[in-house]
Amino acid sequence: MLNANASRPSVQRPLVIAIDAMGGDHAPEMALAGAEKAASVYGASVHFLLYGPQDRLASALSRYPRLAAASTLHHAVDVIANDEKPSAALRRGRDSSMGLAIRAVREGKAQGVVSAGNTGALMAMAKVFLRTLPGIDRPAICGTLPTEKERIVMLDLGANSACTAENLFEFTVMGNAYARVMLGKTRPSIGLLNVGVEEVKGNEAVRSAALLIRESGLDLNFVGFVEGDDLGKGTVDVVVTDGFTGNIALKTAEGTAKFYTSLLKAALKKNLLSKLGALLAKPALLSIKDTLDPRTYNGAMFLGLNGIVVKSHGGTDDIGFANAVRVAVELAQHDINQSIIAEMVKTGHMLAEEAAGDYEEPL
Amino acid sequence: MLNANASRPSVQRPLVIAIDAMGGDHAPEMALAGAEKAASVYGASVHFLLYGPQDRLASALSRYPRLAAASTLHHAVDVIANDEKPSAALRRGRDSSMGLAIRAVREGKAQGVVSAGNTGALMAMAKVFLRTLPGIDRPAICGTLPTEKERIVMLDLGANSACTAENLFEFTVMGNAYARVMLGKTRPSIGLLNVGVEEVKGNEAVRSAALLIRESGLDLNFVGFVEGDDLGKGTVDVVVTDGFTGNIALKTAEGTAKFYTSLLKAALKKNLLSKLGALLAKPALLSIKDTLDPRTYNGAMFLGLNGIVVKSHGGTDDIGFANAVRVAVELAQHDINQSIIAEMVKTGHMLAEEAAGDYEEPL
Repeated sequence: MLNANASRPSVQRPLVIAIDAMGGDHAPEMALAGAEKAASVYGASVHFLLYGPQDRLASALSRYPRLAAASTLHHAVDVIANDEKPSAALRRGRDSSMGLAIRAVREGKAQGVVSAGNTGALMAMAKVFLRTLPGIDRPAICGTLPTEKERIVMLDLGANSACTAENLFEFTVMGNAYARVMLGKTRPSIGLLNVGVEEVKGNEAVRSAALLIRESGLDLNFVGFVEGDDLGKGTVDVVVTDGFTGNIALKTAEGTAKFYTSLLKAALKKNLLSKLGALLAKPALLSIKDTLDPRTYNGAMFLGLNGIVVKSHGGTDDIGFANAVRVAVELAQHDINQSIIAEMVKTGHMLAEEAAGDYEEPL
Repeated sequence: MLNANASRPSVQRPLVIAIDAMGGDHAPEMALAGAEKAASVYGASVHFLLYGPQDRLASALSRYPRLAAASTLHHAVDVIANDEKPSAALRRGRDSSMGLAIRAVREGKAQGVVSAGNTGALMAMAKVFLRTLPGIDRPAICGTLPTEKERIVMLDLGANSACTAENLFEFTVMGNAYARVMLGKTRPSIGLLNVGVEEVKGNEAVRSAALLIRESGLDLNFVGFVEGDDLGKGTVDVVVTDGFTGNIALKTAEGTAKFYTSLLKAALKKNLLSKLGALLAKPALLSIKDTLDPRTYNGAMFLGLNGIVVKSHGGTDDIGFANAVRVAVELAQHDINQSIIAEMVKTGHMLAEEAAGDYEEPL
C-alpha cells in the first residue's frame, strides 16, 4: 500500500519492463531487435520480461545477445490478432502475450509494459487489469510530436471520444507530469485546444475545464486556450484536448506532412534543373525527414492507469520500438504515476486516504 | 414565395452581389481592387452594390474603371470593427457597411453578399437578418481546401462548437449541394470525419449521423467515416464534421504546412550545396507555394441561410478577394439554396408546404 507522502524507495534492483514480443506487424523479430537496441543502452539497469511462444522466442533470441543477457522468457501461446475486438481480447486474452505482459505490471513483477499490438485490446485489458489511478476517471493516450520549436506533449490522442471538463482537467494534471519527465521541463507551459483564444470560445467542456485548471490551486503553467495552428508552431509544451479532436488533429498533421512531401517530391522532379537542384540539396533535405521521423516519436503512454503501459506503432521498426521502450523506462524511472497522485491529492479532488486505499504499489 | 417544385426563373437581369467594402485589414482598397478583378471577368453579367462611406468609395473607385461601370455606391457611415463583439454588432450594426450589405440580400436587392470583415459579427447579423433555410437548424461555414488529389469541400469550419447528429446530417445535404456547384461533380463522395472507419468508432453524434445519412432516402454518395489523414489524401470530395473539430483540423493543417515550409527553408539554407540546389530548383519549388496558396481557396460560405453569404479572409489581397466574389457568384448562379431546400423536402424532415411558407425568395 502506498502512502502518498512517503519518500520513494531507492531502487537497487534493475528496472523491469515487460515486452509483448508478439505485438506489431513484424513480430516477434521487430520487438526483439528493438529491445536489443534498448538493452545495449541500458545494460544491467533494465531487465526485460519477454512474452510469447517459448520456442519461437528462444531461437530468435540467439541473434540478440545483449537482450538475451538482460531478459527472461515467459511462455505465452496465445496472440491477440490486430483485428480482434477489445471485448473478445478481454474474454480470451488473459494468457496471451499481451495479457500476460500487462498482468506482470499488475502483479508487481514489472514496472512497465510495451506492446506494438492491437491498440483497442491493449487499452481494454490495461483498463481492466490495472484500473485507473486514484482520482483519475479516464485514461488518456499521451505522446510527443515535432514542432517548429521543440517537441511537445499532446493528450488525449484517441482514448476518449467524449470528454467532460473534469476529464480535461485530469488530462492536464497528467500531461504536466508527462512533460516534466519526457521534456525535462520543471514547469511546462500548458494549453487547452480550442477554436479561439478568447474566454467565450469553444464548447462547454473546454470553457469549464479552463476554470477548473485556474481554480485548482496547483502550480500549473497554464496559458489558456491554443488553436490548431499552435500544434505546428509549438506554442506550448503540453496540448490538452479530448480524444476525438486530438486523434483527428494528430492524423490531420500527419496527413498534411505527407501531402507536403508529395508536393515537394513532384516539384523536384519537375524538370532537369530541379532534378539537379534536388541532387545537390539531397543531404540537406534529408534533415526534414529526420526531424519528422515518426520512429523518433514512437511510444505513446496510456496515462492514468496503475502502471506504465506504452503503445508502440504496429508498423514501426526496431529503432521505433527501442524508442517506445525508452519512453517506458524513463516514465518508470521518474515514477510518473506517483507525481500524478501527489498532484491530484493537492487538488482536493480526492482525499489522501482514498489515494492510499485505492492504489496498490506495483512493487 | 417559393414553390419547391417550380422551375427556376430564367434570369435576364445581371446577378447582383453586395460588397461590404469596409471589411478586411486593407479596406476599402483591397475589396475594391478585388471586385475590379471580378468585374473584369464577369463584365455586364454581374452588378455590384458597394457599401461604405460614399465620398471615400467614390474617390477610390476612380482607379477601378471596370468596377465603376458595373457597380452602384451605397452610403454606409458605420463600420464594424474587427474586435467588435457579435452582440454589439447586432445592436448597432444594422446600418453599417456590413449590415446594409446583408440586408440587401434580405430585401432581394442582391443574390449574395461578400465581406472580409469580422467573422463573428457577419455570422450573427446574417443569422438574424436572413434566418436559416427551411429544414435547416444551424448554418455551417463551408470552404474548399487543397489535397494530394483535387480540392475538397469541408464543413463546418467553425460556426458550431457542439453539433447533434441532425446538424451533421443537414451539413451533409448542404455540403453535397456545395460540392456539386464548386467542384462541378454530379455525385460528390462524402465522408464523416471520425477517429476510425469502423462503425463502432467515435462519439454518439457521428455514429447516429451516419445512420441518418444512410436512411435518408437521398441519392448521396456517402462512403462512411474518414479520418484526419484523409484530408491531405483527398479521399472524399466532401468532409463533414462539427465546427469544433473542423476548425481545429483546418488550422492544424495550415500550421503543419507552415511548419513544413520552415523546415524546407532551413534545409535549403543549410550549406553551400543546398543553397545552389535551391537556386536551381526554385522555379519548380514555387509550384508548391502555388498549390497551397490560401488566396486560391479564399471565400467560405455561411451555408444554410436564406441568402448567399461569403466570408473572405480579412488579411487577403485583391486576388484572394476576387476569389471570394467568384464563390458568391457561382453559388448564386447555380441557386445552391434552392437545391438544398429540394433535398430537405425529399427527406421528409420538413413538408413541402413548410418549405414554401418559411422561405422568402430573395428575388
